[in-house]
Amino acid sequence: MRRPCGARPEVRAAFQGEAGAFSQTAARQIFGPRVVAVPKPAFDDVFASVTRGHADFAVIPIENSLAGSIHQNYDLLARHRLEVVGETYVRIEHNLIVMPGTKFAAVRRVYSHPVALAQCVNFLRRFRRLEHVPFYDTAGSVKHIREAGLKDAAAIASADAAVLYGMQILHRRIEDDAENYTRFLALCRRSGHKAGGSKTSIVFALKNAPGALFKALSVFALRDINLTKIESRPIRGKPWEYLFYVDLGTDSRSRECVHALRHLREMAPYFKVLGSYDTF
Amino acid sequence: MRRPCGARPEVRAAFQGEAGAFSQTAARQIFGPRVVAVPKPAFDDVFASVTRGHADFAVIPIENSLAGSIHQNYDLLARHRLEVVGETYVRIEHNLIVMPGTKFAAVRRVYSHPVALAQCVNFLRRFRRLEHVPFYDTAGSVKHIREAGLKDAAAIASADAAVLYGMQILHRRIEDDAENYTRFLALCRRSGHKAGGSKTSIVFALKNAPGALFKALSVFALRDINLTKIESRPIRGKPWEYLFYVDLGTDSRSRECVHALRHLREMAPYFKVLGSYDTF
Repeated sequence: MRRPCGARPEVRAAFQGEAGAFSQTAARQIFGPRVVAVPKPAFDDVFASVTRGHADFAVIPIENSLAGSIHQNYDLLARHRLEVVGETYVRIEHNLIVMPGTKFAAVRRVYSHPVALAQCVNFLRRFRRLEHVPFYDTAGSVKHIREAGLKDAAAIASADAAVLYGMQILHRRIEDDAENYTRFLALCRRSGHKAGGSKTSIVFALKNAPGALFKALSVFALRDINLTKIESRPIRGKPWEYLFYVDLGTDSRSRECVHALRHLREMAPYFKVLGSYDTF
Repeated sequence: MRRPCGARPEVRAAFQGEAGAFSQTAARQIFGPRVVAVPKPAFDDVFASVTRGHADFAVIPIENSLAGSIHQNYDLLARHRLEVVGETYVRIEHNLIVMPGTKFAAVRRVYSHPVALAQCVNFLRRFRRLEHVPFYDTAGSVKHIREAGLKDAAAIASADAAVLYGMQILHRRIEDDAENYTRFLALCRRSGHKAGGSKTSIVFALKNAPGALFKALSVFALRDINLTKIESRPIRGKPWEYLFYVDLGTDSRSRECVHALRHLREMAPYFKVLGSYDTF
């Protein structure tokens, strides 16, 4: 499959978190080993850096199989004029990481992103002495322990992060549930020419009328287009009205999808194709 | 309208947060002034206290018109055997609250729940000197400033919280967006006898097949039953499969709803009526 970056010699991909974050693994899966990491502190910064041309692509987590959708990123997708050009799935494995030489008995505090701490509750519960310290990023917590030289602390992060910062893994795969995957999207500035792919993501609003959502979904069902995900988010200033984000198992350039989207536009006061893309 | 607590002389309602929280306002709207507050630190504790009989009812926020659904509470609804017996809507007004006598020029730090801080960004941005301190609860931040006697700090919380802790409001309605409402649900232990009301909430899973959601929604559309909300949440251990939470504008005991739910059961491997209830 053709990568979204084509044959460019260098690709700059922005993501939230420090080097070694799961998003960087996702960026490598989509763009290959020549991707240049552009780490950013927050998701807003990731979108802004692509909008302003400081990075070629953004790589954002959109959904975790245990925690659910990352709603902030759905909201940012609607607000920014970026296009989805690829997706990938990363198996999330959490590891207990320490300074080289630190023994487990010496560990008193465990740093990580709150979601990672929550996903290792069964492991952490077995060791009551461990204080949980919420941190802004998994890889960032490894970097922090390294830079501060903390000998009584551990981080929960990927094996990649441990290698990158020259740290030691004390316990591997400490997550509660092995069925832990995150889906990531790759975004770039809208080029104007329509890319295609096996999946299409759209967002739309509907009139507040009985049966509106059923009628909207009928445009796909009547044409045997599979719907793989639906997500609803509030619309600011219109309490209890929603934006619907829908993923379709088809190319936006296919005959039936062109008809379905034209049909949907008839009933949707707001409508946008977020992109048509492949899975890497 | 008959309150869910009937004519009981005393009603104990558990909610997350300190006395003075928006959930307590919601509890008063549903159960009237004789409600006894049972404040709990976390939503898990709120559900547990009703399950174990330490409180008669739980009052939980389920959706905010700006921030969206409170997904943790959707997950807890599926996990616990409680029944929805009422809903209410609370207008969220945020106020800047200080110790009596504190002047605005002396305020250096602002404490509140992260969502409340995020909803007052425009106000806070005008005063760069203010440090934002995330706290576990809006009313709890007022209580903290009172108890610690902080003269250089303010809290963002409801006017009720200011009155309750004998504090002073420096600025009223500092939220960015006036269209800020939260919908709350009242829950109790399942009684066995079917209560009714103008709305019905259900949760179901579907087989992973093309058109499954469309077919599920057709059971309501074909009977002119209005769907007011749909929310999807991941199923643990089944990546990319979902539980769907749907609110219907009808009584679960109505003829058409009985038929629709029987029809839905044919295609749903998992199905549960969360409750049928009125708006207070």
